[in-house]
Amino acid sequence: MERLSAPRFKRLLLTGAAGNLGRVLRPRMKHYCDVLRLSDLAPMDPAGEGEEVVQAPLEDLAAMQSLLKDVDAVLHFGGVSIEKPFDVVLPANIVGAYNVYEAARQRGVKRIVFASSNHVIGFYSQGETITPQALPRPDSYYGLSKAFGENLAQFYFDRYGLETVSLRIGSCWPEPTDRRMLASWLSYDDLERLLVAALSAPVVGHSVIYGVSDNRSTWWDNSAARHIGYRPQDSSEPWRAQVEAAHPYVDPSRPEVRCQGGGFVVLGPFEKDPAP
Amino acid sequence: MERLSAPRFKRLLLTGAAGNLGRVLRPRMKHYCDVLRLSDLAPMDPAGEGEEVVQAPLEDLAAMQSLLKDVDAVLHFGGVSIEKPFDVVLPANIVGAYNVYEAARQRGVKRIVFASSNHVIGFYSQGETITPQALPRPDSYYGLSKAFGENLAQFYFDRYGLETVSLRIGSCWPEPTDRRMLASWLSYDDLERLLVAALSAPVVGHSVIYGVSDNRSTWWDNSAARHIGYRPQDSSEPWRAQVEAAHPYVDPSRPEVRCQGGGFVVLGPFEKDPAP
Amino acid sequence: MERLSAPRFKRLLLTGAAGNLGRVLRPRMKHYCDVLRLSDLAPMDPAGEGEEVVQAPLEDLAAMQSLLKDVDAVLHFGGVSIEKPFDVVLPANIVGAYNVYEAARQRGVKRIVFASSNHVIGFYSQGETITPQALPRPDSYYGLSKAFGENLAQFYFDRYGLETVSLRIGSCWPEPTDRRMLASWLSYDDLERLLVAALSAPVVGHSVIYGVSDNRSTWWDNSAARHIGYRPQDSSEPWRAQVEAAHPYVDPSRPEVRCQGGGFVVLGPFEKDPAP
Amino acid sequence: MERLSAPRFKRLLLTGAAGNLGRVLRPRMKHYCDVLRLSDLAPMDPAGEGEEVVQAPLEDLAAMQSLLKDVDAVLHFGGVSIEKPFDVVLPANIVGAYNVYEAARQRGVKRIVFASSNHVIGFYSQGETITPQALPRPDSYYGLSKAFGENLAQFYFDRYGLETVSLRIGSCWPEPTDRRMLASWLSYDDLERLLVAALSAPVVGHSVIYGVSDNRSTWWDNSAARHIGYRPQDSSEPWRAQVEAAHPYVDPSRPEVRCQGGGFVVLGPFEKDPAP
Amino acid sequence: MERLSAPRFKRLLLTGAAGNLGRVLRPRMKHYCDVLRLSDLAPMDPAGEGEEVVQAPLEDLAAMQSLLKDVDAVLHFGGVSIEKPFDVVLPANIVGAYNVYEAARQRGVKRIVFASSNHVIGFYSQGETITPQALPRPDSYYGLSKAFGENLAQFYFDRYGLETVSLRIGSCWPEPTDRRMLASWLSYDDLERLLVAALSAPVVGHSVIYGVSDNRSTWWDNSAARHIGYRPQDSSEPWRAQVEAAHPYVDPSRPEVRCQGGGFVVLGPFEKDPAP
Amino acid sequence: MERLSAPRFKRLLLTGAAGNLGRVLRPRMKHYCDVLRLSDLAPMDPAGEGEEVVQAPLEDLAAMQSLLKDVDAVLHFGGVSIEKPFDVVLPANIVGAYNVYEAARQRGVKRIVFASSNHVIGFYSQGETITPQALPRPDSYYGLSKAFGENLAQFYFDRYGLETVSLRIGSCWPEPTDRRMLASWLSYDDLERLLVAALSAPVVGHSVIYGVSDNRSTWWDNSAARHIGYRPQDSSEPWRAQVEAAHPYVDPSRPEVRCQGGGFVVLGPFEKDPAP
Repeated sequence: MERLSAPRFKRLLLTGAAGNLGRVLRPRMKHYCDVLRLSDLAPMDPAGEGEEVVQAPLEDLAAMQSLLKDVDAVLHFGGVSIEKPFDVVLPANIVGAYNVYEAARQRGVKRIVFASSNHVIGFYSQGETITPQALPRPDSYYGLSKAFGENLAQFYFDRYGLETVSLRIGSCWPEPTDRRMLASWLSYDDLERLLVAALSAPVVGHSVIYGVSDNRSTWWDNSAARHIGYRPQDSSEPWRAQVEAAHPYVDPSRPEVRCQGGGFVVLGPFEKDPAP
Repeated sequence: MERLSAPRFKRLLLTGAAGNLGRVLRPRMKHYCDVLRLSDLAPMDPAGEGEEVVQAPLEDLAAMQSLLKDVDAVLHFGGVSIEKPFDVVLPANIVGAYNVYEAARQRGVKRIVFASSNHVIGFYSQGETITPQALPRPDSYYGLSKAFGENLAQFYFDRYGLETVSLRIGSCWPEPTDRRMLASWLSYDDLERLLVAALSAPVVGHSVIYGVSDNRSTWWDNSAARHIGYRPQDSSEPWRAQVEAAHPYVDPSRPEVRCQGGGFVVLGPFEKDPAP
Repeated sequence: MERLSAPRFKRLLLTGAAGNLGRVLRPRMKHYCDVLRLSDLAPMDPAGEGEEVVQAPLEDLAAMQSLLKDVDAVLHFGGVSIEKPFDVVLPANIVGAYNVYEAARQRGVKRIVFASSNHVIGFYSQGETITPQALPRPDSYYGLSKAFGENLAQFYFDRYGLETVSLRIGSCWPEPTDRRMLASWLSYDDLERLLVAALSAPVVGHSVIYGVSDNRSTWWDNSAARHIGYRPQDSSEPWRAQVEAAHPYVDPSRPEVRCQGGGFVVLGPFEKDPAP
Repeated sequence: MERLSAPRFKRLLLTGAAGNLGRVLRPRMKHYCDVLRLSDLAPMDPAGEGEEVVQAPLEDLAAMQSLLKDVDAVLHFGGVSIEKPFDVVLPANIVGAYNVYEAARQRGVKRIVFASSNHVIGFYSQGETITPQALPRPDSYYGLSKAFGENLAQFYFDRYGLETVSLRIGSCWPEPTDRRMLASWLSYDDLERLLVAALSAPVVGHSVIYGVSDNRSTWWDNSAARHIGYRPQDSSEPWRAQVEAAHPYVDPSRPEVRCQGGGFVVLGPFEKDPAP
Repeated sequence: MERLSAPRFKRLLLTGAAGNLGRVLRPRMKHYCDVLRLSDLAPMDPAGEGEEVVQAPLEDLAAMQSLLKDVDAVLHFGGVSIEKPFDVVLPANIVGAYNVYEAARQRGVKRIVFASSNHVIGFYSQGETITPQALPRPDSYYGLSKAFGENLAQFYFDRYGLETVSLRIGSCWPEPTDRRMLASWLSYDDLERLLVAALSAPVVGHSVIYGVSDNRSTWWDNSAARHIGYRPQDSSEPWRAQVEAAHPYVDPSRPEVRCQGGGFVVLGPFEKDPAP
Repeated sequence: MERLSAPRFKRLLLTGAAGNLGRVLRPRMKHYCDVLRLSDLAPMDPAGEGEEVVQAPLEDLAAMQSLLKDVDAVLHFGGVSIEKPFDVVLPANIVGAYNVYEAARQRGVKRIVFASSNHVIGFYSQGETITPQALPRPDSYYGLSKAFGENLAQFYFDRYGLETVSLRIGSCWPEPTDRRMLASWLSYDDLERLLVAALSAPVVGHSVIYGVSDNRSTWWDNSAARHIGYRPQDSSEPWRAQVEAAHPYVDPSRPEVRCQGGGFVVLGPFEKDPAP
């Protein structure tokens, strides 16, 4: 892909650098900064030139205070990225988000790009198109934690002026592999475009935008987020024939087919029922 | 045109197959199914390979019950397609629509693509842009019958889960021939794209979308129907010069110029006045 | 009740005068006109002073043309008022409404008050509050026919300037008798107030308003119809204790409990299934 | 006050029974149930007739599983009710809310009335009126935790059908004591009316409503929550003269005056800044 | 009437004190301040106790700079209050409004209550209900000048923090005298209530509210302006019978009947046509 | 650029022909008419073939009456185009706009394209996307005068049927030169496309549209103005790198950075403060 022109940052922080998207973003985001600081709970490849690698758990505030030092902007992709029991989601995604924001405030960071998720609005129907102003309908503990993160971002902007773009990321994979992803797919190149736009828009306050490619069909209308300057260039269409061949029929009366959140809407419950 | 990728249907039913659009669609829709069943009140060309031809009036419920047997999905283009006295519109478009939906329910059909019309909203001004959520302002008995059909579709979805995409078709002709059609024109290729999208979107509930090409100017904003996946490829623009040359001036104070429904808004009344 | 002040009409027409509400309205509406013309398909009590009684089927256009002669305004309460098979609803409520409007146009009638119904929007949840601008979600053939009537009224206003107030009447009975009616009840006195307001508002175009008393809970917000000047004075509250005692528990997962249309949403289907 | 008629519950659970509002509600809610179960982290007065008293921390899931047993409906007033550092708010209000909902799901509880707060939307201006559909703008960690609770309620309804009314309570004190409370005050009697309405409305899904009396001025328009059936009877007006005398001037350029959340919007930060 | 409790002002300025409403307000507003400064272009009664009388044209900036000195808040009722040729409206209402705002800014005045008018939105139909957010549709040069004043108020708030409540006053007369005024009437007592509310609401930014009594029918829904705390106590209803008797029929097809602005919508043009 | 097809006008009037945009438009608009009449207060180049040059002040009504004679449509670009003291803006932009509209009405002109400005809505944040229905938030006397012009246009359409397209022009310069203009830039070619669309749309009533190119980021969503048929072809993107290099950091807490109006929002005040 042709890289977007963008202002160069001195130091960007990418959390969740050992995760699926973190590994995709590591080489890409290096193009936009002098130093790319990388963090994760899990081990990462050693630091290359212009990289800093810091292994640290999000739920450790002191670690986050160190991590956020001398950082211009944060790409917060850390935490649990799939549905898990609440006591797993809580420290990573709720406490972790708090720690990142609080440390960012203390360190004077100006902007965070927050990897939110379509699972914040997963209970809307695939038979409707929604905007970034749609009220949350989370479909999972994971979705709840991302809704918490969006509210946290709103609070830190209203209270302290720390700006955030919350990306409600669809399905970010190498290619779309089922019928839902024909609508929800976000290519890696478009993810990069979206991050660059979110980092370089001069003013964002707290803005919400769906992270989705220019798919022929989608459930998300980003018209109200044009100020961010994201223009997707990819589409799921080239994969349509093979996906539709592999999944010839879906039954819209089943919640996991009908809802935008797909399979997440039927996961759980995780807790064992108590004795009667 | 390059055909859209789409799941293949076993049997599609096209009503109104002898009509203007029916004749256009007959060869086109054959590409998307094993068997294309064709019906009309009027005689049709004999069945070709993979075709079934059934002459039947929409107002005959028993005939519709037979017609809908073993059908996967319906393209309901049958009925009166221009303004007529109410007693002509009634059996074809109101009773007929009821019969098609009721028979479809009985036969377990999963989806109907309903040829609704811009005349459902014909009394809006050409000086405004409306969305699929615009409240009906029908401009004729014909428009009233199509508004009835849309409500019927909503009822059969809410009550029985039978899904519909209602297409508020603009002006579907070989080419645009007057200034109104520069905005309302739908090319035959785009009509096909729209039908394929409406048939193959995994979940539609009851969705409404305007059937219009990608004309430079239009009165219809389909942003709220992006989930259907319709992306028009054609435009009225190549015909603009000749159309504007042929119709140099239109007077916006005349209802038929001002309203989106065009000439329909001044047709009628049809009934003779009673003795005083 | 204290009668509302209102301009006196020379001749009002009340259709459906032999029906439940027609019989309630007959003595009441006499106060607002010199002559009250009463019509129904069924026999009615003989005409009293200042009354005219005309037995006539709504589906007979010629009869309607006679009936509408020399009438200032119409209270159209005629037709089927409960759910029935489509072929019963059709002539009475769809053809009948057309005949009344067309005859009214021919006879120069200025305004119609149309007894529409909450069943036009019966599939909305009782867990939400809707406005007169809510898109139709009819719950029955009856509801479909009333939605048709509302669209017809919009057409006759846009096309011919004939004004209508469409009343989406809730549950108009002597008293509320189940938990749904605690929200949907319309007292007879409030019905009268509503009719007088709808008749005497100087300008209404085509306006829609919910016909409901000032119940403590309701699903309908008439703020957008304040121009009509309806102010209910009654409430279902005095009946609450006895109703709740008689119906201690309702299960909100059942459609007939959850939906605003109540039991109507599960009536039908009426047609026998065809041979397989 | 005259008690509202309401269906009688077998067993209601009131969490936070030792708190300010809990103590107010304890004698009041007894009128609506056979058994009132009371819980809090802190000690409570011993159980009276028809009462059960259970001291238990919200952050203990097993304790909640016991507590929710054989309960018809829950009034969830437990947790921290003022602004505190995040690590204090987290266990009580976020983990606690999760535990209550999860235990309620396991125990088959049908409805929860959730004591949310105006601090969910505290950063809106006092110079505007908002509806229950306003997007969250929390003003504090406390407000964030209540926004989390509302999203949790939405999730448990969408996923499991457990119904909630979220009450965005204003200022619930014996009387209004500053100029902000002239708008935000909720009397104890109106709180009781609100709870009874929220418990007895037949269908609520997840509904949000502002908890505020019928004050002359307010920032909250509950029109969209009429289905709940809350009609406040009290007003801050009788206290206006003394409040305005005591607080003659407020400077609208200061955030704590300008914002609906009042003083909460300037509390914090609580964390000590890290070493530079 | 019982006076509203309100904070006492040291000095209020009432412009237009010699006008119809100015004379009504002079004795009333004295109750809320130590000193009531009165100004007009025309002569006024001599100053009574606690009054200051200043004859000054609004179009004289220097005079306004003197007039606004030591003023807490302004009731700006000055200027032309009926339709006039543009060159009459311009100096009094456009230049005059600018002078008042600019002088108020220079003198540190905190709040202005601006007598705007329903003629800002006079071209809306009487058959609809609008909110304070309705886009302007002025019906006259007078209405245009009031729309200018509202925009000016918005500018002075956004730019300088000077707060305004813009009152879109309906028909403020001793009693309603025609059918339009049954909807648009504002009693003098309600005007006083509205002014006191607008002066004493702690935070208003720039808020717009319709100045209308609690008439049975109206075209204006003030729900979105509840933060101002205006609760009308009067109604046009007691005059209805005599008004309707005097004006038995109005033809809704005539613009002056159909439009909210009434007769204003057909005044003019005033300019003589130029030589052809 | 390839010229748009458009109906040919007999005589177009371009006011402000000596201004920045006027000089750009003079050779371009000549393509769409037989005669291009040019006017300005300042001297202009002598008339070429098919041109008429008239030096005349907008504030002279008689001059405008002569100027508007035999004109089909007006491109009203005259007046002050930057922020100036109110007494400079007033005659040129407020009186001048009135004179142009009044003379146009007298002369039977059918349509005006009004050069409004983004400064009508300059106080909205760059962190949000607004539509043509956004309520005015003018950022300057200049912006106020343009808001007046838009209201004037609405009045002349509602009252006299004279149609207008109001163009809220962004930053129309040869190229974007700062970060704000990356979002607000309108190329000269796109300006021409916009004018041709506004002149040739058959029906516009009074429509508002943002004048902006197809920039990657923008604050303006023209979806609701699709009926005008404007499709921008240019973008600020090619200039991004050099602009961002020249302006590496902007502080979003400063009003002139945060607000859509840019530097205009901090201009002024112009009046000297009066003696204390």
